[in-house]
Amino acid sequence: MAPPDNRYDIVIVGAGPVGILLSLCLSRWGYKVKHIDNRPVPTATGRADGIQPRSIEILRNLGLKRALMACEPAKVFDVAFWDPLPGGKGIHRTGNWPSCPRFIDTRYPFTALVHQGKIEKMFLDEIEKAGTHIQRPWTIVDFNNTGKDETYPVEVSLKCLDTNVIENVRAKYLFSGEGARSFVRQKLGIEMTYKDQISFVWGVMDGVVRTNFPDIQTKCTIHSDSGSIMVIPREDNMVRLYVQIASSTDPDWSPRKTATAEEVQEVAKKILQPYSIEWDRVEWYSVYPIGQGISEKYTLDHRVFMGGDACHTHSPKAGQGMNTAFHDALNFAWKLHAVESGFARRSILESYETERKQIAENLLSFDNKYASLFSKRPPTAEEVGNARSSAVNAEEDDFVKTFKSSCEFTSGYGVAYEPNLFNWSPSHPATSPLFSIDGVKLTPGRVFTPSSVTRLSDANFVHLEQEVPANGSFRIFVFAGSPVKNKKAIEDFALNLEKEKSFLSVYRRLDINNVSYFERHNPHSKLFTISVIFAADKNAVDIQSLPQIIKDYHHHIYADDIPDVRVPNAKFSAHEKLGFDPEQGGVVVVRPDSHVACTVQLVEGSGTVDALNAYFGSFSTSQLGQTSPSHL
Amino acid sequence: MAPPDNRYDIVIVGAGPVGILLSLCLSRWGYKVKHIDNRPVPTATGRADGIQPRSIEILRNLGLKRALMACEPAKVFDVAFWDPLPGGKGIHRTGNWPSCPRFIDTRYPFTALVHQGKIEKMFLDEIEKAGTHIQRPWTIVDFNNTGKDETYPVEVSLKCLDTNVIENVRAKYLFSGEGARSFVRQKLGIEMTYKDQISFVWGVMDGVVRTNFPDIQTKCTIHSDSGSIMVIPREDNMVRLYVQIASSTDPDWSPRKTATAEEVQEVAKKILQPYSIEWDRVEWYSVYPIGQGISEKYTLDHRVFMGGDACHTHSPKAGQGMNTAFHDALNFAWKLHAVESGFARRSILESYETERKQIAENLLSFDNKYASLFSKRPPTAEEVGNARSSAVNAEEDDFVKTFKSSCEFTSGYGVAYEPNLFNWSPSHPATSPLFSIDGVKLTPGRVFTPSSVTRLSDANFVHLEQEVPANGSFRIFVFAGSPVKNKKAIEDFALNLEKEKSFLSVYRRLDINNVSYFERHNPHSKLFTISVIFAADKNAVDIQSLPQIIKDYHHHIYADDIPDVRVPNAKFSAHEKLGFDPEQGGVVVVRPDSHVACTVQLVEGSGTVDALNAYFGSFSTSQLGQTSPSHL
Repeated sequence: MAPPDNRYDIVIVGAGPVGILLSLCLSRWGYKVKHIDNRPVPTATGRADGIQPRSIEILRNLGLKRALMACEPAKVFDVAFWDPLPGGKGIHRTGNWPSCPRFIDTRYPFTALVHQGKIEKMFLDEIEKAGTHIQRPWTIVDFNNTGKDETYPVEVSLKCLDTNVIENVRAKYLFSGEGARSFVRQKLGIEMTYKDQISFVWGVMDGVVRTNFPDIQTKCTIHSDSGSIMVIPREDNMVRLYVQIASSTDPDWSPRKTATAEEVQEVAKKILQPYSIEWDRVEWYSVYPIGQGISEKYTLDHRVFMGGDACHTHSPKAGQGMNTAFHDALNFAWKLHAVESGFARRSILESYETERKQIAENLLSFDNKYASLFSKRPPTAEEVGNARSSAVNAEEDDFVKTFKSSCEFTSGYGVAYEPNLFNWSPSHPATSPLFSIDGVKLTPGRVFTPSSVTRLSDANFVHLEQEVPANGSFRIFVFAGSPVKNKKAIEDFALNLEKEKSFLSVYRRLDINNVSYFERHNPHSKLFTISVIFAADKNAVDIQSLPQIIKDYHHHIYADDIPDVRVPNAKFSAHEKLGFDPEQGGVVVVRPDSHVACTVQLVEGSGTVDALNAYFGSFSTSQLGQTSPSHL
Repeated sequence: MAPPDNRYDIVIVGAGPVGILLSLCLSRWGYKVKHIDNRPVPTATGRADGIQPRSIEILRNLGLKRALMACEPAKVFDVAFWDPLPGGKGIHRTGNWPSCPRFIDTRYPFTALVHQGKIEKMFLDEIEKAGTHIQRPWTIVDFNNTGKDETYPVEVSLKCLDTNVIENVRAKYLFSGEGARSFVRQKLGIEMTYKDQISFVWGVMDGVVRTNFPDIQTKCTIHSDSGSIMVIPREDNMVRLYVQIASSTDPDWSPRKTATAEEVQEVAKKILQPYSIEWDRVEWYSVYPIGQGISEKYTLDHRVFMGGDACHTHSPKAGQGMNTAFHDALNFAWKLHAVESGFARRSILESYETERKQIAENLLSFDNKYASLFSKRPPTAEEVGNARSSAVNAEEDDFVKTFKSSCEFTSGYGVAYEPNLFNWSPSHPATSPLFSIDGVKLTPGRVFTPSSVTRLSDANFVHLEQEVPANGSFRIFVFAGSPVKNKKAIEDFALNLEKEKSFLSVYRRLDINNVSYFERHNPHSKLFTISVIFAADKNAVDIQSLPQIIKDYHHHIYADDIPDVRVPNAKFSAHEKLGFDPEQGGVVVVRPDSHVACTVQLVEGSGTVDALNAYFGSFSTSQLGQTSPSHL
């Protein structure tokens, strides 16, 4: 057995997007992390991905949005389509549409384009602050889940590539964020499966150009008689061009086919005719083969896990790599935390693979549909217009449906987890007539919708969905409706929260008597933050008269009194936009990754807290509530 | 005569708020700046001021807002009033109101509170980047406007306080940002005059407190039987308390009266009863006497100028010091630039004193009215409600009028310069029936209203009022109305801009043939940026068909197609909010400091450009337009 100081909560291999987000969360949440990467230094250039709207929300929830925006990323709000003119006369614009149309309710309706090295750097700075140092260049040479040590069952051998020194450590978990050529995946004997048997060779070039092509600052898909190109604007006057060099459908296909930078520039010049293009300089150029594959499993034993490119590879033009990796890491981080904090049963770790693999499959199959759909024709202005009006409409045609899904897909808001223990549905083991509220436009498994409210402690206008940082806590939003009408319902809610067997009491902090005066989010339990939003003007809420257990969350009491352009005639915009009756209100449970878990009616009596006890009791280690949950 | 390398465009004395903003502008705009400060190091602690909403706009226009927000300032959205309960039972809240109510159209409806040292640091970093190094500890020992050298008439003697070495330099201008005890002002023999003969001694304390006082995170004015206090939230859980220790109206008045930190804490404890307060630590404590004075002149010779606290001192509770200094500096910077770039006649420098001194006088007289008004009673909820509806309303009562003015005053939007050569009025020398547009809600001399539009070059949603950075250029916003209806008007506008005697042609860049491909703002003249906003959906504007001179501003062509919560039913929000007919449009000239200069109707023929030529010709060094401006 390794000496005690060689024992870690987790060993993370790889400091790409999935590894750094996981490392940051777990380091901040108090875990002992061993994190290695086989590259001597972080990414220096190239390899940018677009940061999708939903990923920007995630970065903000981690406190990284300001650092992202300080990189002055190019912002892509729009995609333009260019197609051949008849008679070999070059290309013309045939359409364009917003990359994140208004039917998607986001604060960031754009993709931010920025050099991956800068994104990595902002994570690395924060990981260091959280006490974890990434060791480079180190690689993993062996691992085994021996089970000899019940608490630290995984033995891992790591090697320093500078000195060849081997270090053996024990860990509760091993996580591979190694990328497509994962040693961990190979040793586990897990196969990649391919949704589509077609592989590609892509050329990608970043540079500063001079051109009279009018859409050079816009994302463009250009089809011409001389080939196809994708244009992506970048920071610092740069432009990225993606050129498909070979496809396994070509008669002379070889995954080793290549092209020089000059050859790609010549192709680009031909494709862009009648417009001209010249390069001031080329910043980065690379050619690489890629297939669209998914790992059959993300784990075998729920101790050794994988995420990011180790589990799924995509064509670069889908712009998914970094975003999917972020979602993988956040999904895994909070579930590991739920188990290791003693809250959730170990079996919930299974949902990491079921949730994330399903999304990877959706993305890959969508990527293909998307490509074939728009190689036929872009949507018309009318179709885009129709798509604006609502997110779901039974009568819309297939084309509009596919267009909408494609927007959700490229914005990151298409991540919709299926019903399971975390995402309530009528088949969930927790049963109560209060689950699900008619008219509420929040779907379990989908991300919580943004809304703006006034925080009463300091009268600040705030973004409700960002009020609890990514700290592993479930967020319980009590849309309290009318403070007068619901006075008793709120008192009963508080009374039942205080009962010995409530989720809040059973998972009370052990250090509750020493909780800091300045604690904002977790006065009672590190697993939950309660927020209360009144459908009232700021001055109509009397905080002093609220029950003490609610007052303990005094940084999370809000008035729903800020106008919202999406519901211009609403008096209580947040309630009304989300579909809550501004008299009745209702409760939303949001997972630590900002996805909706369930909605529960707010009623007088014990029913509301009973339903929450049943929901949390369906996966908690201890029994909750006064009666046994039905599934035990 | 000093050797050539001892000649500067300007010597700036003092690196407080007025000095650093002026230094940053002039250094960036290419001037040779000598900048000294007599303190060995920048401000380390204390001395914060609130950054007003309008000042946040200014910082953003200088590219400093992100750095400001990275300081995580406390944000004050609201002011609460506490008054004594009858019978010595302590205090109770009697009212509160937004510090920047919705009738003020700003993106930043809050005051940001942050340690002055942090604000200075972000300026100092940028000043260094712009090539100016602030020398410390240096002081000014003498100066004379000898006039011996026509170009560099001012001789200045500076002394290093470490070595006692004297350096003599020549400068075009000398600027004193020395603060209240200005050597320059004393040597010029300029008196301070006092609006109100009352002086005060204030105690101010920053610290981390524990209290059950519910409004500790809100700005509060507290009157009690034991005295008065002002509470200002700060960053990092800190709170600032202002306590008035003495007033010249006291029977035992002495400007040297003082109090220890412990004494102030005891007073605070008594005032806050029945609430309790304890200090974890005190970060900074100071006692200082202050009077409300204004310098009689800001300059005598239009070569030696003063600004900031050298010209006006206020009570700290008005929170004006840093904000007024910023406005002083920006006002002076662009006028100096207009003269030194050869554009404006030297006499325009007179308007620095007339504009800024008037504002200082308004502020001081307002400060007194404000204090006396609200010591009587805070406004009622109904009065605040009434004040929301509109900015100007003849029927409202005096109380509401004063309340509104007080909000404008504390937000920085009360800066309304009087008509003069820059701020068009019917008595302006430039005459044309096209000046001033019925219904347009923009007032010459007041700041330009924010609006959101889509930038066509990259489809980004942008803040129109921030699209041209603070670079000394006038901003000409052409609200182009309907692209179809106004096609000829835009073509005629372009045609007349191209004429030999137009403002744009006469002040053409000398380096116009070498202007960078990547130049965003000043393709023709460093003095003007033209922006064109169409009342149309993004896809309805065909940029290719616009006149070339407009296309040269391709980063400044916009579609007015973003909804605005202030005009929820408008189709073209920016046009309609500002009061432009969405068919007709109209032109707004905005000064380099973001204040409106004039509005001109957009018509077919030469009239629109003729009016602009007449406007600019009223202060330009060269004659503009085809006919002589009427005043020559």
